[in-house]
Amino acid sequence: MADLFWPGDQRAGTVMSDEAFFTALVDVENAWLAVLVEQGVAPAPAAADVSALVERTDATAIAEQAEKDGNPVSGLVALLRSRTDGDTARWLHRGLTSQDVLDTALMLCLRDALGMLREQLAAQVRALTALVQAHRDEPLLARTLTQAALPGTAGLKFAVWLGAVLDAADTLEGVPAPAVQAGGAAGTLAATTELTGSPDAALAMAEALAAKLALAPALPWHTSRARLTRAGDALVTCCDAWGHLANDVAVGARAGELTEGSSGGSSTMPHKNNPVLTVLLRRAALTAAPLAATLHAASAASVDERSDGGWHAEWATLRTLVRTTIVAAAQATELLTGLRFDAARARANLAAAEGIDAEQLTMAQLADHPPAATYTGATDQLVDAALRRAAAYLKGS
Amino acid sequence: MADLFWPGDQRAGTVMSDEAFFTALVDVENAWLAVLVEQGVAPAPAAADVSALVERTDATAIAEQAEKDGNPVSGLVALLRSRTDGDTARWLHRGLTSQDVLDTALMLCLRDALGMLREQLAAQVRALTALVQAHRDEPLLARTLTQAALPGTAGLKFAVWLGAVLDAADTLEGVPAPAVQAGGAAGTLAATTELTGSPDAALAMAEALAAKLALAPALPWHTSRARLTRAGDALVTCCDAWGHLANDVAVGARAGELTEGSSGGSSTMPHKNNPVLTVLLRRAALTAAPLAATLHAASAASVDERSDGGWHAEWATLRTLVRTTIVAAAQATELLTGLRFDAARARANLAAAEGIDAEQLTMAQLADHPPAATYTGATDQLVDAALRRAAAYLKGS
Amino acid sequence: MADLFWPGDQRAGTVMSDEAFFTALVDVENAWLAVLVEQGVAPAPAAADVSALVERTDATAIAEQAEKDGNPVSGLVALLRSRTDGDTARWLHRGLTSQDVLDTALMLCLRDALGMLREQLAAQVRALTALVQAHRDEPLLARTLTQAALPGTAGLKFAVWLGAVLDAADTLEGVPAPAVQAGGAAGTLAATTELTGSPDAALAMAEALAAKLALAPALPWHTSRARLTRAGDALVTCCDAWGHLANDVAVGARAGELTEGSSGGSSTMPHKNNPVLTVLLRRAALTAAPLAATLHAASAASVDERSDGGWHAEWATLRTLVRTTIVAAAQATELLTGLRFDAARARANLAAAEGIDAEQLTMAQLADHPPAATYTGATDQLVDAALRRAAAYLKGS
Amino acid sequence: MADLFWPGDQRAGTVMSDEAFFTALVDVENAWLAVLVEQGVAPAPAAADVSALVERTDATAIAEQAEKDGNPVSGLVALLRSRTDGDTARWLHRGLTSQDVLDTALMLCLRDALGMLREQLAAQVRALTALVQAHRDEPLLARTLTQAALPGTAGLKFAVWLGAVLDAADTLEGVPAPAVQAGGAAGTLAATTELTGSPDAALAMAEALAAKLALAPALPWHTSRARLTRAGDALVTCCDAWGHLANDVAVGARAGELTEGSSGGSSTMPHKNNPVLTVLLRRAALTAAPLAATLHAASAASVDERSDGGWHAEWATLRTLVRTTIVAAAQATELLTGLRFDAARARANLAAAEGIDAEQLTMAQLADHPPAATYTGATDQLVDAALRRAAAYLKGS
Repeated sequence: MADLFWPGDQRAGTVMSDEAFFTALVDVENAWLAVLVEQGVAPAPAAADVSALVERTDATAIAEQAEKDGNPVSGLVALLRSRTDGDTARWLHRGLTSQDVLDTALMLCLRDALGMLREQLAAQVRALTALVQAHRDEPLLARTLTQAALPGTAGLKFAVWLGAVLDAADTLEGVPAPAVQAGGAAGTLAATTELTGSPDAALAMAEALAAKLALAPALPWHTSRARLTRAGDALVTCCDAWGHLANDVAVGARAGELTEGSSGGSSTMPHKNNPVLTVLLRRAALTAAPLAATLHAASAASVDERSDGGWHAEWATLRTLVRTTIVAAAQATELLTGLRFDAARARANLAAAEGIDAEQLTMAQLADHPPAATYTGATDQLVDAALRRAAAYLKGS
Repeated sequence: MADLFWPGDQRAGTVMSDEAFFTALVDVENAWLAVLVEQGVAPAPAAADVSALVERTDATAIAEQAEKDGNPVSGLVALLRSRTDGDTARWLHRGLTSQDVLDTALMLCLRDALGMLREQLAAQVRALTALVQAHRDEPLLARTLTQAALPGTAGLKFAVWLGAVLDAADTLEGVPAPAVQAGGAAGTLAATTELTGSPDAALAMAEALAAKLALAPALPWHTSRARLTRAGDALVTCCDAWGHLANDVAVGARAGELTEGSSGGSSTMPHKNNPVLTVLLRRAALTAAPLAATLHAASAASVDERSDGGWHAEWATLRTLVRTTIVAAAQATELLTGLRFDAARARANLAAAEGIDAEQLTMAQLADHPPAATYTGATDQLVDAALRRAAAYLKGS
Repeated sequence: MADLFWPGDQRAGTVMSDEAFFTALVDVENAWLAVLVEQGVAPAPAAADVSALVERTDATAIAEQAEKDGNPVSGLVALLRSRTDGDTARWLHRGLTSQDVLDTALMLCLRDALGMLREQLAAQVRALTALVQAHRDEPLLARTLTQAALPGTAGLKFAVWLGAVLDAADTLEGVPAPAVQAGGAAGTLAATTELTGSPDAALAMAEALAAKLALAPALPWHTSRARLTRAGDALVTCCDAWGHLANDVAVGARAGELTEGSSGGSSTMPHKNNPVLTVLLRRAALTAAPLAATLHAASAASVDERSDGGWHAEWATLRTLVRTTIVAAAQATELLTGLRFDAARARANLAAAEGIDAEQLTMAQLADHPPAATYTGATDQLVDAALRRAAAYLKGS
Repeated sequence: MADLFWPGDQRAGTVMSDEAFFTALVDVENAWLAVLVEQGVAPAPAAADVSALVERTDATAIAEQAEKDGNPVSGLVALLRSRTDGDTARWLHRGLTSQDVLDTALMLCLRDALGMLREQLAAQVRALTALVQAHRDEPLLARTLTQAALPGTAGLKFAVWLGAVLDAADTLEGVPAPAVQAGGAAGTLAATTELTGSPDAALAMAEALAAKLALAPALPWHTSRARLTRAGDALVTCCDAWGHLANDVAVGARAGELTEGSSGGSSTMPHKNNPVLTVLLRRAALTAAPLAATLHAASAASVDERSDGGWHAEWATLRTLVRTTIVAAAQATELLTGLRFDAARARANLAAAEGIDAEQLTMAQLADHPPAATYTGATDQLVDAALRRAAAYLKGS
């Protein structure tokens, strides 16, 4: 996949692509059919690998038909039934509602995305650790409100980014594990109960489906969508952290202190060394939050036993947010891995800054002692704390 | 095109698809090359139809390479140059910067989209006019704050929707005409001036490009993006209007008063008559506004002579907003064309409502006369006003 | 008024304050009572200046009671009736619904806000014209994607800002004139028709109310809210333009090229010269767009003859957006009026930039002539065009 | 406090009011002065209760002066120094930067808000538990996509709401504990280190400040704002849950199944029984998510050692979001506590629904047995699970 409107889109591979979503929808139907047979609800001859009945190219037809029912599941079930017969056709999908299949498929896609994201975050933590260690004590001007403020170090600058990335990683860890949805038409498991003769057996089937798909078990959540909004919010929190460090790289690129490992060129201005990854990360940071706000608006629009539009607003929004985040994750990793720090330029900029010893003189006078040799405060301790936190994260991840 | 995550996506055809955008990018390079030759800047042998040099399948490779420079134009220029030679290769793109090509291509796509949208709005105005005329005096309960309020008519209900659609159409008319972008690297037309030897000749070339592409002429707008935000805001205003009427259809579908012409089914609940288009319109209304907010955020992030992320955030956001709106437009037209009004049910609901004559009794008592035979106020006049406005719009459009 | 959470809030004075809104609500009731008497619907003794019946301090009690009915109008009407008697008490508010009064009051507040905004925009156009004229030909490095690109001028930089402010002013001119709302409980003017005995008389009363309040006449728009979203979008477009120029000032402040006339200090870092207005403008640009998105979400939630939450979401959102914009407008005017350009520093930065003649050399070689003496292209023409547009605007405003 | 634009605002009391924020700012300066003395940095005579030096009315002047420096802290420090002298004036605020004081004060306000919110959530869990228990087995039509779907129960409807509220409560529990900010001008504790002579002593002072204010200790987070976005996202998640249940109450109010305990009236339509709290909750749900998106945008705009606008965008946005959420929390509690369920009407609506046994017949036929006596599936188990979860929450909270 690649998207002419979103350079770098291919970094997300097939995650939440139409193809991946189609496969996931089929996987859910396949797994449920297996559960029906395994639990003795459907007869043994109903067993079949229905994923063998479809090809990638079916996805387009299913997508086009999806408008008729408002979602692609009814069309998919009809297609699968048309390509098999007997008990398989009779039993396929029985007990589920369209939303069960679609939500569970979304969760399968989300699980894969979260896995990719965690790998990227770990790579970023490693890259930032290396940056901190490589430039720990190099002087770098600290700026506040755009202006020269105090002497600082490259080590603390990178440690601050490291902390922000770890904050994002923590937020991601708090996201509920992607879970199964299998409540039937009104979220009561009524159909499965009717088929099995027992509510407990119906609930057991939902759990079996979760186990088969390696998703967390869950009671029906058709109109309780915090599961999705929490994922969306965590993705945005990641983009925020990369936006923050991209802003700093942009400032550093203006000041000549930071350069991307492999910058973009200009067809007519060969001297230019554009911080392209930085620019693309800032792009992601601008677009992510409103997408998560849409997931909240959709969640807040929940009504009845299944919603009249809120649900439908989630799918493409989550897809775009997920792919945006994965692309940005990979770009941030590359940016951090290749980032070059120009220590000489940083020293020159620091030397050229006026008045940055003013605060220290005030404090020394107040404390009635001569100014200390340095004025970097607890920088060492803060850097060490960030490195310890990074090491603990990498051990745990 | 079809999008498994957005049922109905195919309604937008290829508008702002990768294919359409790729074609538009090539069209801009092609037109500019022709202008260079026609104005005598490039020699006659440079003339060529470069659109013949590319195929649809090139779009994917260009999309993948776009990350390197942050946009697809450099890659496209390199590709085109690699497939021709001599003066054509030498002169292609000269005087333009990547943003010129990309922005102008976006405007070509936007122009097509606005055209489709205007057609849909006119169709909706016709459909609503027909609805008003067909059910003008049929009684329909007026509700406020979810509760039965006063006697009303179907005619006024539809006339209110008509007014809202016309408001959206008015907003769309206020959008600046899609315009050319041809300012060069820093928005000064420096390169074209150097090539032509005269600023006036450079400005004339930008105008010639606009004329050749049937876009409005414009001075450079690389960092002044109101042109895009106004388009985005107008698209949202359309989605708002459809969201509004979809909400009313949903209420009417609950009450049995309104039914979609061709409702969606349920695999296991054959009695259901789901208002699918209504649901999909509500979906669009939930997602559109945050996309336009992103266009504003991108505009507000403008900086320098070309921006460091704001610009890049616009392309896919505009694409998604445009396609969402076109899809919703077509669905709204179908909804309004097929909508069925159940006059008997509406009368029954009105009859069952308690207390809806209370206000009239209070007013009659106050005015010291017996209550009038009806209590629909200026409904006739309001309906006539809406119909007149509709007729004027259709005449003008 | 002042807001500890929003420095500069007092710049908006009482615009859309509780006090102003309360006054506007009373003004609407007062004007309507006058219309009732003037049109001969209410008897002459009903005439009264009910604004004399309330004090500023009543606003708090009315605000507290507003939750009971979901809006402050019922409480206000009860209060007014309790402080008068006879015909005045009997006739006050008759024919209107709460939404009529509240919407019309909002429009009165909005009208005042738009007036203030237009004055600020004109002042900014004057300040920018002066900046362009004062520094028209001063060299200033043009930057793209954060990097040195080409030679430029301060004149064009300021002319670009001027163009963006004029784009915003144009957008504002497109906002429908604030209009009256007087449709009664279901938007049919049923009550007024019952009172007057004629729909035409009822419509005439709505027009008389508009005239008395100096608002535009309008047919009822209880659930058609494009009127508000268009205002909101225009306000955001203004904030975008100021965000854009503030970003450039921030870059200029980092580079030493631009300084605010009266910068903020630091308690412990006396050397600092913080671009405070710039920072506060960037703040406004970050917050405005999501507020306008809420107005769209509210509009899209319109339903029935009066909405069940969408309407209620608008009031405070519009208030905050309006005040944010007015404050930012005044800050932008001050910023532009006081802005200092350090020509020597700008020349030095330009001289230090490497490779910025590269594009010109390529073009000159291509055109087979020696490079021209300058490389600022059509800068003069672009600046003149902006100045002409500014003059036309100032003449028209 | 009350807000004429936001009925019910007074429910939030003084939480995050100007007054509360002013008090919090003073409390931080006061606590820090005490720490300076207690740790032996400042001499004993510097000890003072500076909160005694200010009055509520000072808040307005401080708010007005805040624009000069972009935040209210410099003005406050100057005011406090002007009202004392000697060592107190000399030592006050030493070691802190404005952002330390303001961020810590925000956290104090947030802590109070989260406490109020937790109480409301617990009250809602109790009210919902009571609703479930009171109407557990009462029949209630289950609707999907606006249409009659299956037989359901009031117990499960309320249990679903209970689950959504518990999901929101869980999200709130994941918010990092409000923490101190005490990093000094560049987040390095340089000033405090200079004053104490030791980084460890400086870090200990930051911890002492946290302890004194009953906040969590934290390393500096001036540009790492996930702490705020996570709080914002959790507040929105609460509003989503109330929006969801309010939508269901609105549907129930339309269908006559649910009535608010104390509904709003209409001045001219005495029969009306408006679901006012429901409407106001839907209002909150429409406005909350964009505010949290602004907090993300602000976080993503972080740059340098202190930000140039992102930080400033947070304060009022968080204030509005917090108050909106607290008001909605109280309204939701009242709604749930007073909600009346009309069992007879619900039965009648269920009886009138056509075709809702269709799914069961299909399933029974498939399973080759006569339809079971009921078709509510695992409703009992789902309700029990929700009640157990509620009980566990109440025990833990």
